Amino acid sequence: MTMQPEFMKVEFNSNDYQSDDDAVGELPYMNGHQHGFADHPASLRGDGYGGGGTIKYSPLTAPTASIQSHNYEPDESEVWRAYVSQVHFLNRGQWWTTGKKRALKRWILTFLVGVIQAFVAAICNFSSRALSKWKYDWVYELLNPPAAASAVMNVETDDLTFMGDETVGGTQADAASKSGISAFWAFCLTQVIFAAIASIFVWIEPVSGGSGIPEIKCFLNGIDLPRIVRVKTLLCKVVGVTFSVAAGLPVGKEGPMVHSGSVVAAGISQGKTNFWGVDTSFSKFSDFRNDREKRDFVACGAAAGVASAFGAPIGGVLFSLEEGASYWSTKLTWRAFFCAMTTISTLFAIKNVDVMWGQADVAKLFSFGEFTHISGEASNFSIWELPVFAIIGCLGGLIGAVFNAANEHLTIWRMKHVNHSKSRRMIEVCLVTFLVSVVSFVMPLVWGRCTELPKDMQDWTNQEKSLVENLIPFNCEPGKEYNEVASLIFTEADIAIKQLFHFREGGSEDNSTFSSGALFLFFIPYITLATIVYGIAVPSGLFVPSLLAGAAFGRLCGHLLHKLDHTNGTFADSGTYALMGAAAVLGGMARMTISLTVILLEATGDMQYVLPLMLVLMSARFTGNVFNEGLYDIHIHLKKIPFLEPEVPPIAERNEIVAGQVMSTEVKCLRPVERAGVVYDLLNSCNHGTFPIVDTATGGTLYGTASRSMLCTLLKRRAFGSPDILDDYDNGENLGPRRLSPLVQWDTIERAYPRYPEIDDVDMRDSDRNCWLDLRPYANTAPYTVNETASIQRTYRLFRTLGLRFLCVVNYNNQVVGIITRKDLLPASLSNSLLRGRNAHVIEDEHHLD
Amino acid sequence: MTMQPEFMKVEFNSNDYQSDDDAVGELPYMNGHQHGFADHPASLRGDGYGGGGTIKYSPLTAPTASIQSHNYEPDESEVWRAYVSQVHFLNRGQWWTTGKKRALKRWILTFLVGVIQAFVAAICNFSSRALSKWKYDWVYELLNPPAAASAVMNVETDDLTFMGDETVGGTQADAASKSGISAFWAFCLTQVIFAAIASIFVWIEPVSGGSGIPEIKCFLNGIDLPRIVRVKTLLCKVVGVTFSVAAGLPVGKEGPMVHSGSVVAAGISQGKTNFWGVDTSFSKFSDFRNDREKRDFVACGAAAGVASAFGAPIGGVLFSLEEGASYWSTKLTWRAFFCAMTTISTLFAIKNVDVMWGQADVAKLFSFGEFTHISGEASNFSIWELPVFAIIGCLGGLIGAVFNAANEHLTIWRMKHVNHSKSRRMIEVCLVTFLVSVVSFVMPLVWGRCTELPKDMQDWTNQEKSLVENLIPFNCEPGKEYNEVASLIFTEADIAIKQLFHFREGGSEDNSTFSSGALFLFFIPYITLATIVYGIAVPSGLFVPSLLAGAAFGRLCGHLLHKLDHTNGTFADSGTYALMGAAAVLGGMARMTISLTVILLEATGDMQYVLPLMLVLMSARFTGNVFNEGLYDIHIHLKKIPFLEPEVPPIAERNEIVAGQVMSTEVKCLRPVERAGVVYDLLNSCNHGTFPIVDTATGGTLYGTASRSMLCTLLKRRAFGSPDILDDYDNGENLGPRRLSPLVQWDTIERAYPRYPEIDDVDMRDSDRNCWLDLRPYANTAPYTVNETASIQRTYRLFRTLGLRFLCVVNYNNQVVGIITRKDLLPASLSNSLLRGRNAHVIEDEHHLD
Repeated sequence: MTMQPEFMKVEFNSNDYQSDDDAVGELPYMNGHQHGFADHPASLRGDGYGGGGTIKYSPLTAPTASIQSHNYEPDESEVWRAYVSQVHFLNRGQWWTTGKKRALKRWILTFLVGVIQAFVAAICNFSSRALSKWKYDWVYELLNPPAAASAVMNVETDDLTFMGDETVGGTQADAASKSGISAFWAFCLTQVIFAAIASIFVWIEPVSGGSGIPEIKCFLNGIDLPRIVRVKTLLCKVVGVTFSVAAGLPVGKEGPMVHSGSVVAAGISQGKTNFWGVDTSFSKFSDFRNDREKRDFVACGAAAGVASAFGAPIGGVLFSLEEGASYWSTKLTWRAFFCAMTTISTLFAIKNVDVMWGQADVAKLFSFGEFTHISGEASNFSIWELPVFAIIGCLGGLIGAVFNAANEHLTIWRMKHVNHSKSRRMIEVCLVTFLVSVVSFVMPLVWGRCTELPKDMQDWTNQEKSLVENLIPFNCEPGKEYNEVASLIFTEADIAIKQLFHFREGGSEDNSTFSSGALFLFFIPYITLATIVYGIAVPSGLFVPSLLAGAAFGRLCGHLLHKLDHTNGTFADSGTYALMGAAAVLGGMARMTISLTVILLEATGDMQYVLPLMLVLMSARFTGNVFNEGLYDIHIHLKKIPFLEPEVPPIAERNEIVAGQVMSTEVKCLRPVERAGVVYDLLNSCNHGTFPIVDTATGGTLYGTASRSMLCTLLKRRAFGSPDILDDYDNGENLGPRRLSPLVQWDTIERAYPRYPEIDDVDMRDSDRNCWLDLRPYANTAPYTVNETASIQRTYRLFRTLGLRFLCVVNYNNQVVGIITRKDLLPASLSNSLLRGRNAHVIEDEHHLD
Repeated sequence: MTMQPEFMKVEFNSNDYQSDDDAVGELPYMNGHQHGFADHPASLRGDGYGGGGTIKYSPLTAPTASIQSHNYEPDESEVWRAYVSQVHFLNRGQWWTTGKKRALKRWILTFLVGVIQAFVAAICNFSSRALSKWKYDWVYELLNPPAAASAVMNVETDDLTFMGDETVGGTQADAASKSGISAFWAFCLTQVIFAAIASIFVWIEPVSGGSGIPEIKCFLNGIDLPRIVRVKTLLCKVVGVTFSVAAGLPVGKEGPMVHSGSVVAAGISQGKTNFWGVDTSFSKFSDFRNDREKRDFVACGAAAGVASAFGAPIGGVLFSLEEGASYWSTKLTWRAFFCAMTTISTLFAIKNVDVMWGQADVAKLFSFGEFTHISGEASNFSIWELPVFAIIGCLGGLIGAVFNAANEHLTIWRMKHVNHSKSRRMIEVCLVTFLVSVVSFVMPLVWGRCTELPKDMQDWTNQEKSLVENLIPFNCEPGKEYNEVASLIFTEADIAIKQLFHFREGGSEDNSTFSSGALFLFFIPYITLATIVYGIAVPSGLFVPSLLAGAAFGRLCGHLLHKLDHTNGTFADSGTYALMGAAAVLGGMARMTISLTVILLEATGDMQYVLPLMLVLMSARFTGNVFNEGLYDIHIHLKKIPFLEPEVPPIAERNEIVAGQVMSTEVKCLRPVERAGVVYDLLNSCNHGTFPIVDTATGGTLYGTASRSMLCTLLKRRAFGSPDILDDYDNGENLGPRRLSPLVQWDTIERAYPRYPEIDDVDMRDSDRNCWLDLRPYANTAPYTVNETASIQRTYRLFRTLGLRFLCVVNYNNQVVGIITRKDLLPASLSNSLLRGRNAHVIEDEHHLD
């Protein structure tokens, strides 16, 4: 970008400054009166709110001070306008304009995001499956030593017996119990080692722990959480989740996949990587290196993540939509749609690479197996069952609320006692994994019953037949019997979900594939362990554990209904109830409605469930919301992240607050032309992100705003003017139109994104302190403002809907009286403001309310 | 609402004024200096834009002058704040607050909307089906007179022949041809009469013509189109569409159902009806009687409409989302979701009322029949077919573009020559219907071939068997043969769609259920007629005709592929191709992507098509957008409705415009305290909706804004103060804090919604003209403002995203320099502004561009 149209004459090239320090020496030093307007915010204050004292941020919001908001709009300054008109100038008369080029690049990058995320998901899936398989094979070998195993294989007589059998012979029993013990220890050891490996990756990059969905929610909400979308985070998350799933913990890959998709998107859009040595020029400066483009890519990536995790492209788009609904644009919907479609196409092609020219196996797309109609029936449920589903939804909402409450308390305890030390977190992971391993191994032993495999399978679908092959003959005769509880535990979670969804019941209670006892014995410990596990230092998703626990719960509900069914009819299809239970528990935990419906529909491939699923999820949400919020929101609040809900907080609805009451009056202002030393001291003394520029000549009229990053860049590049030229300015002289400092171009400032210079990087010499810094060309002259009498509803809506970073509060004369940032609009801050200075009658109301 | 807290002492009750005119007589008349600030907007103007001349609205936008925007935010005036604090005061210490009551009512009303829309849809469906059936029965009877018919019934010999058979006897041929002619005339007559009836309803209420989707799009965009959501419109639309569908025109019920849902929602939320004589208090003033609540209800109603039309609840929510994406909130998503769910549940219950306790027939929910897997195959398509689908999508996009272009030209012609006269529109309807009837009758005769009914149907599904029963034996032997073209024409459109979707092919070309020739003979005339019909004065949807034509087109494409298939394998499943073709043509016409995908998925009930459908719709959209816009947008633009696209118009992206350039400088301002006569004259002289109130003492600082409705109400209620009290005000004296006129409460003003008093309703006496009207308590003191240097992108985003009605443009001193309304942001206005005063280099660019 070296073109300079005529009207942009003055520009200091970065090389001039950084290599040639002599140029600065010419600017003489002046130690004269160093009057800073910045120190007198009180003189700007309007008529009354805030009581005159400086407001400190409340301790509740204190930890958030270092978290910045994203900046979704360019600062509309003179240099920005010059840059824009330069671009327009270059485009005159061209068909293939910069905008079109950029749009094409955007689509190509979106396509790449989709493809890469599909491969990431496929590799992650494959590796965790391979690791699991290796683990179970080894343990199985230890459990059934080759001799015994071969005996089982070869002989079909009944006199060969197995562990746990009453008639077992002495030596054989000994061998069996020995092999059982060694298998147990091998099992525990493998699981703990896998979990420890996962935990090491979280040690390396702490933000890669947990589900990642809360973090992505915050990112889309406009909060710049550090290191969330770095490539390092991606690697740690993906490798970590592969091991944590292989470790047999009750965790899923789904949340981490969503996070992974977001990081892939952010990385590809921001990265400067060459592809195979060819500069694809996807990564040139200024194309997508800003917060708005990054956010859009992350939204697309999140959609691709959901698509790859569940095979649910539309659900993915809706997920992004539900989480970032405020700023969503139609164009972005197409892109997210396209990205999710690319992912699912790629995954589809990867999975069907062997049948390229034959009929594709669509079933491979349905993560939880395709539901089919009960043969001869028009649907798998009746109308009268709809209220039953609603009740299951309510119960699921209750379970979810209990889950959330328990996990919340546990997380608070963990934050106090564990999380401050990395080694403690590591030890916790090992201990919890050991506990999970013991419970996993003991439960099937407690159950200890062997169930015969179904025999009459002529009319079964391929899916059901393959599920039968996945049943685990833990301590039972392989090929003839299986252990019900072991079949749910010693397998991957999604196969267990498929079994609960699709396994058909035998005719009677005794003959059912999963009896009520087994389901109960599985459900209670499993959901308890899931509660404990979420929050330890491994990457861990919550969708799959919720779905699995819920499926067991739903099937239990179905069994209960079977007791009523004296005619032994076909009603209360167990698979349907398992699906409803799964939806209920997941809905009660996460409280998403519309995207969850679509995700489950897409993952099970049968549209007949649209109505029941809607009912279940709706009632789960309503019930759960009576008690607490969704788990993701709980974790966001526990981490004290300044998350702005899409709706105005109830406290603002219930009380009459105006912008002037909630604003922070601790405003640090600058004059349009300011001494470099004043700016430097100001930046050093506070960590505000934005500084209003006010016109002292007119008593503090808002001239514009200056961002911290821009000021730091100017100071670092030393874009100063001589200290002599403005002798009478400090005494109130008017400035006139002349420009004082050399002009730094807009893209010179923005090229540093997202790592702008910090104030610590600036080397302020004494000789420079009195030089003048002309901020007028860099000032955002059209900042969003709000009148101090505006209601908090209007202010909140303006701030949240436009995704602002700050909002200047002005009085009738356009004088700055305060500034509103994200922190000031959080419910806690609002209630603080309410208790502080406000009209007498409102206080009275509040007292009555108390 | 008679509670008056202490701080609201002065209030003129409406009864006081309207019944007691003497009270006004006390206000003495003064004919003194009648200086109006309003006439001098130039004195308020800022520094430069607009060249100083008064800007007239351009002729392009002139027809829109009478169309108002919705007002989504309350004017935040003192009286509003008093009202709000009054509500808070009443709620102090209560658990069951006004807000909670209102929320509950809102949910109950939403539920009612869902239920009622389901019944409306069911009744409409049932009646149009009954009318069609009656029509076809009658024509069939005439075609096959009882004698012949009974002969057919009784005898199974081959010597009885039918019309068109070569060996027919003389008299019988005569009779047959006579019966044919009379059947033809009966057919034409019935169709024309039905269409005429439909047209009469459009005569009664012109806005009930057409699809209704463009109108709802505009409504959700924030445009207050007159009479769109009246109950009268609902009745005309629903009855009209019943008849227009029964008339055999190529129109669908879907668009009108969406409109109907919206009207039901608006009616229920706004109506004052008692239910069965019990005041359910759903309709009390101030609960939902404002534009914001109405818009939210309409969005829910639109979702319910789609749900009832296609059985697609999630698609419905997405439809509302796609059309009104800018302001969408999460809470509203739940409500739309709930509303759509209620509708679909009710419809489900209505349709399954006979099998309440058995298995519900889910298939009845799938409007276009449920797709099932080809037996023994994993899916109905292979991976290599995905590119083929994309090509079909492109072709569909082309067809859609041609359709749109043809219909656009036709509509322009129609607007010039037909639409200005109601009788001409009526005659047009009759002529077009006659043409449709003739073509419909002639095409099967041209085809003239009889195809044998499939015989070997053991392994066919129930759905397929019932479709076979629906085949039409036009001139063929009933029960043995059918006419392929007649089977597509002489039936309801959705049954025809089902046949194209689900009828399986015979093994060879000769034996296929619908041969290529028949499809071609159907496709070309049908899509031509559909192009002609859309726009005549009957309620008519476009979804079904597009889908039907597209299905025929898709099946044709499938046949083409069959030619390649020498092995006569199962690839290129005709049903799948029909579905893809339908999606392609509809997508090419309407250009919706994500909601259409979901609607089609939900209407066909098979998730395996998610990927192909996404591909097809995406490519159809891309291809179509190369040529023109979607049909709904075309019609919106032809009607010159000031529709604001969700994205900033390209012209703003391509050029560098600021708010000061596009604003209207023809601002009519008022002083905070103004003579009643000045206000009256101002309101009479222009039809602006909002007037800035500026402080003359400070040179025109923006004090607030006053809405036209509020001013009219104040004038009508004569809330004046004595003309004596402010002698020196006109000479520039400061006002001080005293209140001058009696205070009218906020709910007194808003109670009139949406039919506020007009200026013509105000009876301005000469004695009142000099009285003072104190606007300060009623002024919206925190209007949204934008600095004149703000870029047009920022201005557009602010305006569109918040759904504003106006935007005050101010300079640095908060002085009003202009006002931006919806009209100023339309692409046409923007390019006008560009050609007018702007910087020299930008003009140069533009010339280069030209």
